[in-house]
Amino acid sequence: MSSNTFGKLFAVTTFGESHGPAIGCVIDGCPPGIAISPEDFTADLQRRATGRSRFTSQRHEADAVEILSGVFEGRSTGTPIALLIRNTDQRSKDYAAIGAQFRPGHADYTYQHKYGLRDPRGGGRSSARETTMRVAAAVIAKRYLAENFGVRVQAWVDQIGPYVAQRFDEAAIEQNPFFWPDAEQVPVLEAYMDGLRKSGDSVGARLSAQATGVPVGWGEPIYGKLDADIASALMSINAVKAVEIGDGVAVAQQRGSEHRDEMTRDGFSSNHAGGILGGISSGQTIVARMAIKPTSSVLVPGRSTDVHGNEIEIVTRGRHDPCVGLRAAPIMEAMIALVLMDHALRDRAQCGPAWHRRALDER
Amino acid sequence: MSSNTFGKLFAVTTFGESHGPAIGCVIDGCPPGIAISPEDFTADLQRRATGRSRFTSQRHEADAVEILSGVFEGRSTGTPIALLIRNTDQRSKDYAAIGAQFRPGHADYTYQHKYGLRDPRGGGRSSARETTMRVAAAVIAKRYLAENFGVRVQAWVDQIGPYVAQRFDEAAIEQNPFFWPDAEQVPVLEAYMDGLRKSGDSVGARLSAQATGVPVGWGEPIYGKLDADIASALMSINAVKAVEIGDGVAVAQQRGSEHRDEMTRDGFSSNHAGGILGGISSGQTIVARMAIKPTSSVLVPGRSTDVHGNEIEIVTRGRHDPCVGLRAAPIMEAMIALVLMDHALRDRAQCGPAWHRRALDER
Amino acid sequence: MSSNTFGKLFAVTTFGESHGPAIGCVIDGCPPGIAISPEDFTADLQRRATGRSRFTSQRHEADAVEILSGVFEGRSTGTPIALLIRNTDQRSKDYAAIGAQFRPGHADYTYQHKYGLRDPRGGGRSSARETTMRVAAAVIAKRYLAENFGVRVQAWVDQIGPYVAQRFDEAAIEQNPFFWPDAEQVPVLEAYMDGLRKSGDSVGARLSAQATGVPVGWGEPIYGKLDADIASALMSINAVKAVEIGDGVAVAQQRGSEHRDEMTRDGFSSNHAGGILGGISSGQTIVARMAIKPTSSVLVPGRSTDVHGNEIEIVTRGRHDPCVGLRAAPIMEAMIALVLMDHALRDRAQCGPAWHRRALDER
Amino acid sequence: MSSNTFGKLFAVTTFGESHGPAIGCVIDGCPPGIAISPEDFTADLQRRATGRSRFTSQRHEADAVEILSGVFEGRSTGTPIALLIRNTDQRSKDYAAIGAQFRPGHADYTYQHKYGLRDPRGGGRSSARETTMRVAAAVIAKRYLAENFGVRVQAWVDQIGPYVAQRFDEAAIEQNPFFWPDAEQVPVLEAYMDGLRKSGDSVGARLSAQATGVPVGWGEPIYGKLDADIASALMSINAVKAVEIGDGVAVAQQRGSEHRDEMTRDGFSSNHAGGILGGISSGQTIVARMAIKPTSSVLVPGRSTDVHGNEIEIVTRGRHDPCVGLRAAPIMEAMIALVLMDHALRDRAQCGPAWHRRALDER
Repeated sequence: MSSNTFGKLFAVTTFGESHGPAIGCVIDGCPPGIAISPEDFTADLQRRATGRSRFTSQRHEADAVEILSGVFEGRSTGTPIALLIRNTDQRSKDYAAIGAQFRPGHADYTYQHKYGLRDPRGGGRSSARETTMRVAAAVIAKRYLAENFGVRVQAWVDQIGPYVAQRFDEAAIEQNPFFWPDAEQVPVLEAYMDGLRKSGDSVGARLSAQATGVPVGWGEPIYGKLDADIASALMSINAVKAVEIGDGVAVAQQRGSEHRDEMTRDGFSSNHAGGILGGISSGQTIVARMAIKPTSSVLVPGRSTDVHGNEIEIVTRGRHDPCVGLRAAPIMEAMIALVLMDHALRDRAQCGPAWHRRALDER
Repeated sequence: MSSNTFGKLFAVTTFGESHGPAIGCVIDGCPPGIAISPEDFTADLQRRATGRSRFTSQRHEADAVEILSGVFEGRSTGTPIALLIRNTDQRSKDYAAIGAQFRPGHADYTYQHKYGLRDPRGGGRSSARETTMRVAAAVIAKRYLAENFGVRVQAWVDQIGPYVAQRFDEAAIEQNPFFWPDAEQVPVLEAYMDGLRKSGDSVGARLSAQATGVPVGWGEPIYGKLDADIASALMSINAVKAVEIGDGVAVAQQRGSEHRDEMTRDGFSSNHAGGILGGISSGQTIVARMAIKPTSSVLVPGRSTDVHGNEIEIVTRGRHDPCVGLRAAPIMEAMIALVLMDHALRDRAQCGPAWHRRALDER
Repeated sequence: MSSNTFGKLFAVTTFGESHGPAIGCVIDGCPPGIAISPEDFTADLQRRATGRSRFTSQRHEADAVEILSGVFEGRSTGTPIALLIRNTDQRSKDYAAIGAQFRPGHADYTYQHKYGLRDPRGGGRSSARETTMRVAAAVIAKRYLAENFGVRVQAWVDQIGPYVAQRFDEAAIEQNPFFWPDAEQVPVLEAYMDGLRKSGDSVGARLSAQATGVPVGWGEPIYGKLDADIASALMSINAVKAVEIGDGVAVAQQRGSEHRDEMTRDGFSSNHAGGILGGISSGQTIVARMAIKPTSSVLVPGRSTDVHGNEIEIVTRGRHDPCVGLRAAPIMEAMIALVLMDHALRDRAQCGPAWHRRALDER
Repeated sequence: MSSNTFGKLFAVTTFGESHGPAIGCVIDGCPPGIAISPEDFTADLQRRATGRSRFTSQRHEADAVEILSGVFEGRSTGTPIALLIRNTDQRSKDYAAIGAQFRPGHADYTYQHKYGLRDPRGGGRSSARETTMRVAAAVIAKRYLAENFGVRVQAWVDQIGPYVAQRFDEAAIEQNPFFWPDAEQVPVLEAYMDGLRKSGDSVGARLSAQATGVPVGWGEPIYGKLDADIASALMSINAVKAVEIGDGVAVAQQRGSEHRDEMTRDGFSSNHAGGILGGISSGQTIVARMAIKPTSSVLVPGRSTDVHGNEIEIVTRGRHDPCVGLRAAPIMEAMIALVLMDHALRDRAQCGPAWHRRALDER
């Protein structure tokens, strides 16, 4: 029941601290026969990486994945796949001064009090660096889902502070450093982010994601509902403070006659539910959203205390992201893909590949 | 890894269908020595029950809890506690007609396609009746948390369709059928709900909850974060479509210098984080919110299909709630209490009761 | 991770004390569509029951199974199946006197010290009565395994104290109260058991089991090996003190050239391994054995202490089995069936139904 | 529920193949504050290592442990501890020829049929090389158990083929390459093993272990019994075919009046139970035994088939152990220590440190 493991059947255990020697993961329960090479991880890790543009932290990590086990002659063998990435650009001296301090809005205070000690270098285990391994593990899940079910997961940013995306052009998303679906707004965002960086402050964001191609039937009552697992998956991402499925928070204002998705011979006529009914996928596109807080690592001085209870003023130097949401799109995709992969296997375990179709045919 | 089990150490397994002979649960891992009697469940079950006011479904269930095991001479023994409630007012004839139909917005369609068959009586397993056992199990968790840590969990409704609570008066919450914290608005809500019921439609709602008295240190990195587990817990409640922690969706518009909760000698000076930092409780009040969709069981006719793919018009008769959110406050409390109870035990397992305090003292 | 749950995908949670109001179980993860009726449980529960012959405890329980959930119109729906058996012949006054005493060889002492209190009536949770629900749950597993894979599990007793079975005649097993595979020895055993009962003492036994029809490929490295899970399953049965797979303890004296099972075009030429290689089924018959201790509830006076540490002399009255091994055959079968069922689903989850055959064909 | 993870709270996930780039493990749930350095692993890894004497495989591995995470300034932080050992002496050409062959008595056949492909180099994942990481992880568990509870686990070999230990002299165990507790027999064993090696054959063994200092109260009913978990733990070790607790298989011949351990004011007067009653430790020494088969990798030619079903003759060259049992003592200790560590945390989670003592005091 280890808390550093995600997934029940496709189980990903991550390890590693921001400034330790390495980060890594072990993927257990992976189906055999999947083609996997070290190069397969490059694209998604690059999408998540720092230092890609002037709008993200300037930490430069090669993020070269070494496959330590579970792959033979380029294919998964069914045994645990261990992936390792060495940390190379730690610069822990940037952080040495704040080892005895609690940065507001960070996990310093809670880790220290829970465990009685902590690795303060770059936030240690609580750093977003850990999410690198989620992205790496999900590369395998994405491939399996795409090849076997035609599933595709895509995430994008649709709000940064006061700016909300005005159009949704899927082709635009990967063409700008903001994962933003409206190319016309990009110059405005660039100017906004430059100003923010100069002011030494940070800003929150909202991201959306959709998974297409998910067949009807994934998810389980009651506590393993697909949306419950997605909620857990997304809320486990650093800085996320809200998760929505389908119409999300807006449902509080809707009427039943408006919200329910009617069905015709041609399928559902709307998708307020976000592709999940009773915790089980309906065959429609799965739609999720998440809100991500602004990082508390800012140059604006703030009040805090040290480990001895003394009051201090704190300014977070080092390398940080003015908007951590900018790098969260691949992480959001990764978590959704991991949930779907796990449920694909869980559904196959309990229901088999053909049971329900046969049963319906027999009626 | 059963999906009808919630919690890792304080593990609650629920069973039962809306119109089957009974619903029940098994609580495994409960600490020994807790005083438990059948009467202890009455208050919270009444708060959740249907038929309490004209604003909820008129199904009348006695909800008498029988303790089948795990309690000896009024105290928990450490072995599994099984609780049983017989269903008495099922009226399954109300539902017989729609056995071959898929109600829009319900789990009929997905259960049928996942499993190849389903219990259509009252929604079967997907009915909110299941949540009765969550409330029952949480009675024990609440008691343990209160007696050992002074923890108290309270939920309320603060939005119903277009109406948003204008004040927060904790004393008002339990004094009206809406769990509404502003007594002055209650007459308006009554009129609104009466109109809604007459129109045969339903409406969504938003609920908030707070847990006070939670010590610093509960929750675990990375995938067992306290907020991730709360998100899963709340999203697993029927009809919930969004979960927020602390400032929730609003963080997308905040700046880092505004969001971060500064610390002084006297503690935190604000609580934007909602009492959780890095997935671990900070000792502040834990704050969560959830949005709940309007039930799709409405008298307004809707288009749908039957199990053979034929198009039909559907009107959901039977007994339903115009606003299912009205009964969700005790359920929300229950799920938060179950998460906290589980993490209290998990923290004790790994960190022991005294480690971190000792460690800090030694510095 | 509740310890009263067995199995990862076909997860059986049992509850109930020997002299409480009821015992029961919840089976989660059961495939949908399996035909199940209350009568299906009768045969195996009768085989396990006390009071069937003069050689077992004279407690008479009807063991009528009530299906509380998870079955609709005679078929499993995929939701949790709850089974309930009311206790009717508890006679707890038999046990009242020893509530403050620790019976040697029983769990009284350890439960009391672990939990600080215990239900002393009939041993409470530690009573073999709990195994009734294992047998009940396994009825469903056995049916699924038989119908889908042709798997059949059979257990028998082949040693009672000094007597060892001289022949193996499968047809004889169910024809005598000892589950003994050699009809000729039965009169001798009857005389031996009568003498034992008169002396007020008890005796140990050894049981064997085989599972035929298990396909190659069930079981998982490293800690979920099929034999490791069988070992845990059998050792969890009350009074079991040893578990053997294949040649078992005898392998300590074997040579490698003697032990290894050679393969020819027609399959394996021997089965020293007991049908499991590297933790995975080989397609051969699975062979397991277990040794079961004599019950410590005997009329021969023994020395013990009470809960206050005072020395006492103890004589266990009440109803007991002179050889608890006599009723363990159906329990042994049940536990093996539960392990196999779980691994059938686990294998299907990871490897799918056809992957390996296809892969081999392609070579 | 990953099968390459052992333990529920002190959860050890191992990965790696015999001849892959590395083996490793991730320890999750480790209490914070434990002193850990790379050198701490040396002693036990040396005890398990090949190439220590002429009686074991001549593979020479440095087994240098790199700590990748979870330790800061020499102490565990509570986050996952990843340990890595690079494989250096793989010589996989030794094994290339048999890639398409199934070695009798090995996991080749079952892995191939389960997964459709396998890593044949040195047995891949099914190699005993994996046990290195169990020993490494257990170093931490042993330290915690020793420092906090005074627990000590010791294993030894007491049967090798026809030879059975005649005396038990604990001091002798670590003084000879056989972990043999009777120094006088060592010359005879050396001669026997030399002869065996020359004949190209192998032999089985039996090992015993004891854990002293275990307090009363560890272990859980029903399926998480301490003996059930030890049985699973030991049976998961390569080549183990039988597990015994206390008197083990001998109980089949005992009478109840003989087996039960009487209690006096001074404690138990015997230990037939092996320190466990009802699945919970009694405070006595825990006693376990296991039988280990002779390796099937022998020079004596044997009949087998290849992956295409053709009959072949097979002679296992490469480096192998004439008696794999000789290196199993540290592994047996490791698995018992891991079980005890897990249950120490599980007991603390549910029962707290003081509950039961207080409760008894109050009587």
